[in-house]
Amino acid sequence: MGLVIMRFDTLIKNALIITAVDRFSADIGIHGGRITALGRDLGEADDIIDAEGLWVLPGGIDAHCHLDQPLGDGAVMADDFHSGTRSAAAGGTTTVIPFAAQHKGQSLRAAVEDYHRRSEGKAFIDYAFHMIVTDPNETVLKEELPALIEEGYSSFKIYMTYDDLRLNDREILNVLALARREGAMVMVHAENADCIAYLAELLTESGQTGPYYHGVAHSSIGEREASHRAISLAELVDVPVLIVHVSGPEAIEQIRWAQNRGLRVYGETCPQYLMLTAADLDRDGFDGAKYVCSPPPRDPAAQEAVWQGLETGVFQVFSSDHAPFRFDDPQGKKLHGEHAHFEHIPNGIPGLETRLPILFSEGVVKQRIDVTRFVALTATNPAKIYGLYPRKGTIAIGSDADLTLWDAAAKSTIRNAELHHAVDYTPYEGLELTGKPVLTLCRGRMVSRNGQPTAAPGDGIFLHCDRPQPARPRGEAKGF
Amino acid sequence: MGLVIMRFDTLIKNALIITAVDRFSADIGIHGGRITALGRDLGEADDIIDAEGLWVLPGGIDAHCHLDQPLGDGAVMADDFHSGTRSAAAGGTTTVIPFAAQHKGQSLRAAVEDYHRRSEGKAFIDYAFHMIVTDPNETVLKEELPALIEEGYSSFKIYMTYDDLRLNDREILNVLALARREGAMVMVHAENADCIAYLAELLTESGQTGPYYHGVAHSSIGEREASHRAISLAELVDVPVLIVHVSGPEAIEQIRWAQNRGLRVYGETCPQYLMLTAADLDRDGFDGAKYVCSPPPRDPAAQEAVWQGLETGVFQVFSSDHAPFRFDDPQGKKLHGEHAHFEHIPNGIPGLETRLPILFSEGVVKQRIDVTRFVALTATNPAKIYGLYPRKGTIAIGSDADLTLWDAAAKSTIRNAELHHAVDYTPYEGLELTGKPVLTLCRGRMVSRNGQPTAAPGDGIFLHCDRPQPARPRGEAKGF
Amino acid sequence: MGLVIMRFDTLIKNALIITAVDRFSADIGIHGGRITALGRDLGEADDIIDAEGLWVLPGGIDAHCHLDQPLGDGAVMADDFHSGTRSAAAGGTTTVIPFAAQHKGQSLRAAVEDYHRRSEGKAFIDYAFHMIVTDPNETVLKEELPALIEEGYSSFKIYMTYDDLRLNDREILNVLALARREGAMVMVHAENADCIAYLAELLTESGQTGPYYHGVAHSSIGEREASHRAISLAELVDVPVLIVHVSGPEAIEQIRWAQNRGLRVYGETCPQYLMLTAADLDRDGFDGAKYVCSPPPRDPAAQEAVWQGLETGVFQVFSSDHAPFRFDDPQGKKLHGEHAHFEHIPNGIPGLETRLPILFSEGVVKQRIDVTRFVALTATNPAKIYGLYPRKGTIAIGSDADLTLWDAAAKSTIRNAELHHAVDYTPYEGLELTGKPVLTLCRGRMVSRNGQPTAAPGDGIFLHCDRPQPARPRGEAKGF
Amino acid sequence: MGLVIMRFDTLIKNALIITAVDRFSADIGIHGGRITALGRDLGEADDIIDAEGLWVLPGGIDAHCHLDQPLGDGAVMADDFHSGTRSAAAGGTTTVIPFAAQHKGQSLRAAVEDYHRRSEGKAFIDYAFHMIVTDPNETVLKEELPALIEEGYSSFKIYMTYDDLRLNDREILNVLALARREGAMVMVHAENADCIAYLAELLTESGQTGPYYHGVAHSSIGEREASHRAISLAELVDVPVLIVHVSGPEAIEQIRWAQNRGLRVYGETCPQYLMLTAADLDRDGFDGAKYVCSPPPRDPAAQEAVWQGLETGVFQVFSSDHAPFRFDDPQGKKLHGEHAHFEHIPNGIPGLETRLPILFSEGVVKQRIDVTRFVALTATNPAKIYGLYPRKGTIAIGSDADLTLWDAAAKSTIRNAELHHAVDYTPYEGLELTGKPVLTLCRGRMVSRNGQPTAAPGDGIFLHCDRPQPARPRGEAKGF
Repeated sequence: MGLVIMRFDTLIKNALIITAVDRFSADIGIHGGRITALGRDLGEADDIIDAEGLWVLPGGIDAHCHLDQPLGDGAVMADDFHSGTRSAAAGGTTTVIPFAAQHKGQSLRAAVEDYHRRSEGKAFIDYAFHMIVTDPNETVLKEELPALIEEGYSSFKIYMTYDDLRLNDREILNVLALARREGAMVMVHAENADCIAYLAELLTESGQTGPYYHGVAHSSIGEREASHRAISLAELVDVPVLIVHVSGPEAIEQIRWAQNRGLRVYGETCPQYLMLTAADLDRDGFDGAKYVCSPPPRDPAAQEAVWQGLETGVFQVFSSDHAPFRFDDPQGKKLHGEHAHFEHIPNGIPGLETRLPILFSEGVVKQRIDVTRFVALTATNPAKIYGLYPRKGTIAIGSDADLTLWDAAAKSTIRNAELHHAVDYTPYEGLELTGKPVLTLCRGRMVSRNGQPTAAPGDGIFLHCDRPQPARPRGEAKGF
Repeated sequence: MGLVIMRFDTLIKNALIITAVDRFSADIGIHGGRITALGRDLGEADDIIDAEGLWVLPGGIDAHCHLDQPLGDGAVMADDFHSGTRSAAAGGTTTVIPFAAQHKGQSLRAAVEDYHRRSEGKAFIDYAFHMIVTDPNETVLKEELPALIEEGYSSFKIYMTYDDLRLNDREILNVLALARREGAMVMVHAENADCIAYLAELLTESGQTGPYYHGVAHSSIGEREASHRAISLAELVDVPVLIVHVSGPEAIEQIRWAQNRGLRVYGETCPQYLMLTAADLDRDGFDGAKYVCSPPPRDPAAQEAVWQGLETGVFQVFSSDHAPFRFDDPQGKKLHGEHAHFEHIPNGIPGLETRLPILFSEGVVKQRIDVTRFVALTATNPAKIYGLYPRKGTIAIGSDADLTLWDAAAKSTIRNAELHHAVDYTPYEGLELTGKPVLTLCRGRMVSRNGQPTAAPGDGIFLHCDRPQPARPRGEAKGF
Repeated sequence: MGLVIMRFDTLIKNALIITAVDRFSADIGIHGGRITALGRDLGEADDIIDAEGLWVLPGGIDAHCHLDQPLGDGAVMADDFHSGTRSAAAGGTTTVIPFAAQHKGQSLRAAVEDYHRRSEGKAFIDYAFHMIVTDPNETVLKEELPALIEEGYSSFKIYMTYDDLRLNDREILNVLALARREGAMVMVHAENADCIAYLAELLTESGQTGPYYHGVAHSSIGEREASHRAISLAELVDVPVLIVHVSGPEAIEQIRWAQNRGLRVYGETCPQYLMLTAADLDRDGFDGAKYVCSPPPRDPAAQEAVWQGLETGVFQVFSSDHAPFRFDDPQGKKLHGEHAHFEHIPNGIPGLETRLPILFSEGVVKQRIDVTRFVALTATNPAKIYGLYPRKGTIAIGSDADLTLWDAAAKSTIRNAELHHAVDYTPYEGLELTGKPVLTLCRGRMVSRNGQPTAAPGDGIFLHCDRPQPARPRGEAKGF
Repeated sequence: MGLVIMRFDTLIKNALIITAVDRFSADIGIHGGRITALGRDLGEADDIIDAEGLWVLPGGIDAHCHLDQPLGDGAVMADDFHSGTRSAAAGGTTTVIPFAAQHKGQSLRAAVEDYHRRSEGKAFIDYAFHMIVTDPNETVLKEELPALIEEGYSSFKIYMTYDDLRLNDREILNVLALARREGAMVMVHAENADCIAYLAELLTESGQTGPYYHGVAHSSIGEREASHRAISLAELVDVPVLIVHVSGPEAIEQIRWAQNRGLRVYGETCPQYLMLTAADLDRDGFDGAKYVCSPPPRDPAAQEAVWQGLETGVFQVFSSDHAPFRFDDPQGKKLHGEHAHFEHIPNGIPGLETRLPILFSEGVVKQRIDVTRFVALTATNPAKIYGLYPRKGTIAIGSDADLTLWDAAAKSTIRNAELHHAVDYTPYEGLELTGKPVLTLCRGRMVSRNGQPTAAPGDGIFLHCDRPQPARPRGEAKGF
């Protein structure tokens, strides 16, 4: 018989623990913010949470969201690290990874430092940074990126569209080669800029400029083409790549084709591609502007394809792509008024707080996906892909006690009035849900309860990310 | 501070635990044969195993093996539950699922009862039974199978070839429909019997009857056709199906195609399809007979395709298909002498003991697959697919303490003289390996150490399997 | 300058000639029933036809139709060679290839001889015979088929369904091997008999027995499976095969997959798969029985897939599958009364006369397919595939003067009252058409004018078909 | 009986005529350079050619060749219209379509006018011009191209690589939109310029600069990517597109994928992709430079894929891509000496004269493709695709009497000494052939006999091309 003396700050009793693969009942002992024990009858602690009847999942990681990101055109993001992470916490998320965005001509390090200033002391939950690389010049590639990756900024997003963000193919090859050498992860916004511009010009000429036409201009052909191109460039360099916010069957077909060939191509999708369609962009008046995001939501067949992609493993990551703009606001969707050309409507929709409940209700409860896959998509896979694992993303000894307790049967209805972001609408107003996060812990501390944030600004800490893959010299590339 | 009093029979210290998704360091506390705690510094126990430097994986499940299976033609399987499970234990396996085979005209229950008699008191490790259904008559479908499934025999194999085993399509539909109604899992040996017979006749006419021509007769086209047919019949009934021992790209293409469409089609492969080729069947004299199994090993391109299938997730299960016949034995490969027509050579090769070390060395060490996928393929997935999860197949609180401790760097060479089966050869003689199981526990008891079995016959117990899926009435089938 | 003296029985002036590849204006000189000259200003003849403003196409070949075929169940085909070929002629067809059907136990030669008796002196247009092989015994394979193929019966159909017709896989392999040895063409009715029986039994149990459920029982999954199987068996034997009356995307996918791999797999479709759907089978009362055929018409998406198959070259042949049963007739659709179980409704729909006008109007006029492809599908390809080329199927020197003159702009409406078959309904009643055959010649003799037959019974002659491919010994098969 | 008086300048007796679909014996009457009669026993003429034992095919159209094209780097093409068309004629070709190339900044019309000056009075056979559009500015798109297309220059090539030629995606969309509006045909050189530059830089850094590395830099991934992109851009605009000189399975997969979806995507390949491999680029010393062309020849598996593409209909056009540079010449392959970096070796290989004999011998005689497909690939399809049909490309009444008489059994060996181009080598030196053109007529006049040109410079005339498709306004595009 063993006599074990264990010190727990917090003990979760009677949990039904669910990981990306397992499902078992146990107590969870937490000490120093970490999970230090899993076991039957782990005894007592000062702080005991009875999880009887609840499911305990790894806290959500929202690996794609935009907070307080400086923009060049006068628009202002509604959420900063304060309101954004507060909202995320309320929705069961314990880690966010927003973007430190380089502007063309700017030092990447300066962008990172600026972003630290913006986040400092504000976060309710933990956070890491992706970078956005828009100007991969010699200094960035040879000095800044290697150093920043080493320091814990090991992933970055690149754009194939937007004039002020896009890279050309050569620049993409250069950053992919850098990623290979340094073991970093590259995320790609895959839309063909020229296709968008071409269609936008035709639409403009014919006076078709309302929000609906945003979706027409951002064609699924252009998204597919850019996806194939990003995959091909990564294949050439022999480095993994992740296609973000995939909207429908055309891009899915390319990603699956690559995966079937054995290429390390990852896919991400978001709630908007499951729940919205082009019909939302076509709502009366300027209301369609609320749904303007890129790529745009498409049609019911595309929704089905995205669900199938979640079920069959095409997607590894499910994020919000939270890009918060107030609707009734001259710094938001109405930056250029209520009759703005679709090209001038700030792009993006809010979703940090609703991401997990929507996928839980529509996916797990409706039996489209297993709850273990829910965990994989919302926590474990992003943690692994972005170098936060095993600290984040699972329920295991030594991992941070980032835990979300779900009541799988609780009913609720999404109401923007009850959300905690600073946006004045949600695209999902009135959506009825089954299942909700009733308690969320980040490093063992409660950050929300029954949908109300309970942490304080500054409780969240910055996370240095590991390299998600080994750094590999160029010469080892296959086929070269 | 909590004071926890925990009783452990055995404590594994300093383990690097690897599950199908996680990888973390912890002690493992075992009590009553089950894992009761995972944690840092779990204190003391009477029996302490120091796992420093070792990897602790779930014990292997060999979900496809043949032991002491009565045959009609005079051949005798070399391994019974004694030698078979002894050999499996030595190779890091803690559960085997061999087959209780119905003969045409026989009661299925009688077959199960007979198989219990054959296994009683002999097993070193735990075991469950698949059934082989060869005569799905009214009684079997309406009475025996529902009762047996309820009692813990929840999976069965059917054959599309072999005259004494094969079902026609209508019989297959009937058993698939039964599986749907009762929540059972159907495994399919997918080869087109008529294609084999047609080719065998041509080969016989032209005097091409040596072991090599076994592989010619069992064409990949016939395997592909039967795979497509099995998938289609299961799709019609709307029930999962598992294609066993897949040998190459033709069948893989069909399985992947089905999976991409969202069908619940599973695939299994075996070491022989990674390590052997038709050239082995063509070895001098009668030596090729050692490699006669169905489907046959094919060519290096097929091996590559099977590896890619393991990497990309086409396969969920990796089994041995151990079918033990002594080579130099009139009841074994030489049943009909050394010049036997390939049709008369007993089918099958041994592999219980070498299955895990080969996949570990060739797959994990050579970085073709991640060690978490190794766990999924060899333990977690078979446990889930066959209704043994969460009791078996993972390292989690409440699960049986079935654990294999691996030294990932240890070198060894496969020598039949050192194996523990009763077969007089191994197809892998001389194969050099990196990584080996140094200690194996089944329900907390050591069953092998450094490749030597340490358990006693009868230590292993029979496992009743749960339904792997909910029983569903016919009327709910999609599209009907 | 040359002075040419040419003798023409008939001269077609100012024709816009369209072949499967070409389109040019010329006069057509006909002598002895054959095309003997094409040229500008071919001078004079006794019989001059001015084709100004008309398109001259090769006469249609209906390579899949049933006429006066003896049935075992009391049903009687409404059309014999008299009414059938009269109807075909009126619709622009100049050659039909119906089926001499062997019954199990019957001599194949006897079936052919019987069929000659049934056709003797009755046909308005030329005809050849396919055979239906239902009993490929030793005598049939070794004696009758080789002799019959040599004598001009070089194609035969086999069935994978219908209890009295179906072959098992071994029989299919045997007839495919025979086809390879003798250079014959095998047509396959690809539906899985057991799938149909299984579904029919479920439907019967639940009382779902009306005509609509015929379509449910004949699932597209069963059609796809059988298509894949037929393709695989032919691939094994290394011989061409033709999948007849393909109904939708599932089977199309298999055929295209095979064609893309370089296999010589041909596909045929029919008007019913372009113009009808399951909704027609669901018409009020017993009216749905009019549309009972196998495979059944499916849904609008399937129609689109069939059109795409025609456009992209998946299909080589467009036939009617005319299988004529009167609706209001105790020997026809009402063989078992107006409440008959769908399994007892005679299978088939009429279509000899409407085949070409429908494809012309819906395909050529609506610009889904080019008129050259229309010619290929309806005349040239069937002639080549079945050994009638170059005698039939094109407009070239030496070919039979089988010509159909089309008025591409003429409007008409399909009315059964105006058709010339002996069936009391058409599935296309009321369909409005653009384009119609205004004059049809068979071997230079007018056989119809403005939709009225003008030939006499016995004008049509029997055609001996060449081997469509070289006879090849078994040993040359690829991969064997 | 008709008495026909026909005047023929030339009469070909006893021809076995082969078109893209037909094969029949007839005399061919020629008057005024056109085919005016086809028939049996067409009587007499002043000039009678007895074709007994020969096959008469439409004269070849080489729709992709470079002659006397001005280059900016000091290299000079070895062949002008004189030597180039002389060589083509000797090889059975009766029409060539070389390129009038715009240089950036240059007027397209000026390029066309310049090219007329270069061709004036020099051609042995007929010729049309494709244009190369490198600078699709406002004037070119709005004025020059519409006018030139109207005047008979209805096809143009665009480049996705080469710094001085390449268009960006927006420019490609603009020219595709123009092609749609005006009914023109766009040919695309599909290689990703940035991929080539990226690889070339790596190779340069590591000192891998010999001719072999040209093939490494021009990766099949880059070719595939650009093919997918070109297809996508054309799909967006809803206009046909033709991918030229396809080298292997990666690009083929994309083209087939598009064709299977019903897109009007055409493919062209060339003899070098059937007969050469990267091993030729790796020949001793600088000899590899002889084989430097883009895309480069790849490997035997790629050759097989190209053959399969020819057999299965992926390719519609088979051209030479004749780009003539002398090897041992400071204005040719040795422009930068014998140790030149692969980037500085003039790109291209000769092939006008050997194109048809190679495809005939390797394809038709070896039974990989049917002779009717040979005709389609080398004459009929290019004529249709580029607006020369029905004047060119077939044997039909009213068509130009462009005819090549083949002796299908004649043996020969390719020797550069016997070719008629001005290049000092052929990549096919020593290749043994079966089948050769023994007589070639262009508009009824003999242009070569037994491999010797018999025409005179200036005999060939310029051909104005029709629009290959109807001009369609933008608004009608599908999906827009």
